[in-house]
Amino acid sequence: RYFHFCKLPGRVMGIRLLRFTSVVIIVLLLVAGALTALLPNIKDDKMPNLRREPKTQSQSALDSFTLIMQTYNRTDLLLKLLNHYQAIPHLHKVIVVWNNIGEKIPEEMWNSLGPHPVPVVFKVQTVNRMRNRLQSFPELETKAVLMMDDDTLVSAHDLAFAFSVWQQFPEHIVGFVPRKHISTPSGVYSYGSFELQNPGFGNGDQYSMVLIGAAFFHSGYLEDFQRLPEAVYALIDETQNCDDIAMNFLVAKHTGKPSGVFVKPVDIRNLEKDTNSGYSGMWHRAEHLLQRSYCVNKLVNIFDGMPLKYSNIMISQFGFPNYANHKNKM
Amino acid sequence: RYFHFCKLPGRVMGIRLLRFTSVVIIVLLLVAGALTALLPNIKDDKMPNLRREPKTQSQSALDSFTLIMQTYNRTDLLLKLLNHYQAIPHLHKVIVVWNNIGEKIPEEMWNSLGPHPVPVVFKVQTVNRMRNRLQSFPELETKAVLMMDDDTLVSAHDLAFAFSVWQQFPEHIVGFVPRKHISTPSGVYSYGSFELQNPGFGNGDQYSMVLIGAAFFHSGYLEDFQRLPEAVYALIDETQNCDDIAMNFLVAKHTGKPSGVFVKPVDIRNLEKDTNSGYSGMWHRAEHLLQRSYCVNKLVNIFDGMPLKYSNIMISQFGFPNYANHKNKM
Repeated sequence: RYFHFCKLPGRVMGIRLLRFTSVVIIVLLLVAGALTALLPNIKDDKMPNLRREPKTQSQSALDSFTLIMQTYNRTDLLLKLLNHYQAIPHLHKVIVVWNNIGEKIPEEMWNSLGPHPVPVVFKVQTVNRMRNRLQSFPELETKAVLMMDDDTLVSAHDLAFAFSVWQQFPEHIVGFVPRKHISTPSGVYSYGSFELQNPGFGNGDQYSMVLIGAAFFHSGYLEDFQRLPEAVYALIDETQNCDDIAMNFLVAKHTGKPSGVFVKPVDIRNLEKDTNSGYSGMWHRAEHLLQRSYCVNKLVNIFDGMPLKYSNIMISQFGFPNYANHKNKM
Repeated sequence: RYFHFCKLPGRVMGIRLLRFTSVVIIVLLLVAGALTALLPNIKDDKMPNLRREPKTQSQSALDSFTLIMQTYNRTDLLLKLLNHYQAIPHLHKVIVVWNNIGEKIPEEMWNSLGPHPVPVVFKVQTVNRMRNRLQSFPELETKAVLMMDDDTLVSAHDLAFAFSVWQQFPEHIVGFVPRKHISTPSGVYSYGSFELQNPGFGNGDQYSMVLIGAAFFHSGYLEDFQRLPEAVYALIDETQNCDDIAMNFLVAKHTGKPSGVFVKPVDIRNLEKDTNSGYSGMWHRAEHLLQRSYCVNKLVNIFDGMPLKYSNIMISQFGFPNYANHKNKM
């Protein structure tokens, strides 16, 4: 009835057009409705979207990790540790960062003692730098990185558990060595461990860093590390130290939360004294800790603020080695 | 120069209009830019949006909790515990669920011994039901609930720490008593603790429930509890048991994750033997544990599946009572 005003020859055309338009609109609405119903349920799942990358990785890339171990002047320890670490559950590959400049990698010997559980890649370096281990290696296929110092032995149980914890906290550095900074009235920061005063947030101690020499973290942070200000690289190169503090600054700034999650290890050992090389790690240098306090203050300048946050969460594995670890005298 | 084509009398008008339009557009862009700069930084903050409610709560509603303590036939213990719990940091209010039907609440005595640090409300019940404590009390103003049995003493340090943990895991039941279910080849589930076999996911034990008799959880779950199928209430009333198992089912189903986060208490005590009433808790009944296994299987039917998930995360407070709790023999 309401078409009567269209007295133009196109009146019939008008009705057809109207019908056609209505059909198109209805079809579009149905399609939109179907699409909405098909939208995936956005849950707050384990893997926050750190990078907007296409999900082309295989399942193993999420369920396994890559061990990155930098080595200098302790090949005997390296080989001892490789025998242990190559058999850790969920290990995908090992990347050895070879800081022994000019020295041949033990590839022949390694191959002659094959087969090995996983591929081991020796990355020959041209300069002996502490931050060599923080490159974005093309061989890295997994989301998770396990970074270990070449003198640290952590049990398979501890690593398997810590990896499962990382999968629940993938944006954090999940590891076995907690450290902290403290603020002093002068505004100058100091770096240390339990020997320093508690930061004063209620009872007990706090930590604000987890060292990357025995920790899991997301491989995306290696890419982020390449985009830091030059001053950070200069600082790390100047001190041959503090790359781990820089990583904690990076992660804390990125997340706005404490950078690390501390997992209390059941069995962690330092094998330094076992080396035949006579070389002991950098942390024995007299100025080591003072350097790290120095680094904290320099990084606060570079980052234009102190991004590190405190945490007092300590995670252990329920009922391991046995249920006594949670027994209560109720 | 490009205005020359406008030979209409409105040419001057055209220029003015163009200028005006340009100014309006520029102003709008500036305003949009300013608004964008002023937008709050959406961080993945502590409080996930469990309910789409307007943020009218005061700051204290987020930073404090309400203690809900149900009591039956142990008023001497109740009063002892109230003296302790009324002074816990971050406590907003106490709600005592009075299951002593027909008996007067000790309000006179309570008031005569004032003032008290926080308000204490006695909710008189008409029927002695286990699930009375799981009502959505109008007096409840905080997001967090601390639920405690009337015979359990947990230290202030433990509670303060567990509350801070709950604030980081607000969708979980964060508490001190872990339990688990296990699956048997027949498909029948069993309920228990460390004495049962490990569920078999790698090393160590797992838990799939955290009991609400000593735990923090989100007050929203009390509202959710009111919307369960009638069969759940019938089960709880039939057994006078299992309300906590039902809550774990509810939370696990809601989150799709393990319902609880276990915080290992430093000092938790059962004061049962200290009561003069001669009444000992329900858990001493011979059929108590068998009932709970029975409840697990009934709830699986009602929930149409087993929603409980396992966790082996055990949380402790870093460096409390002292740093020895994380010392490593490195």
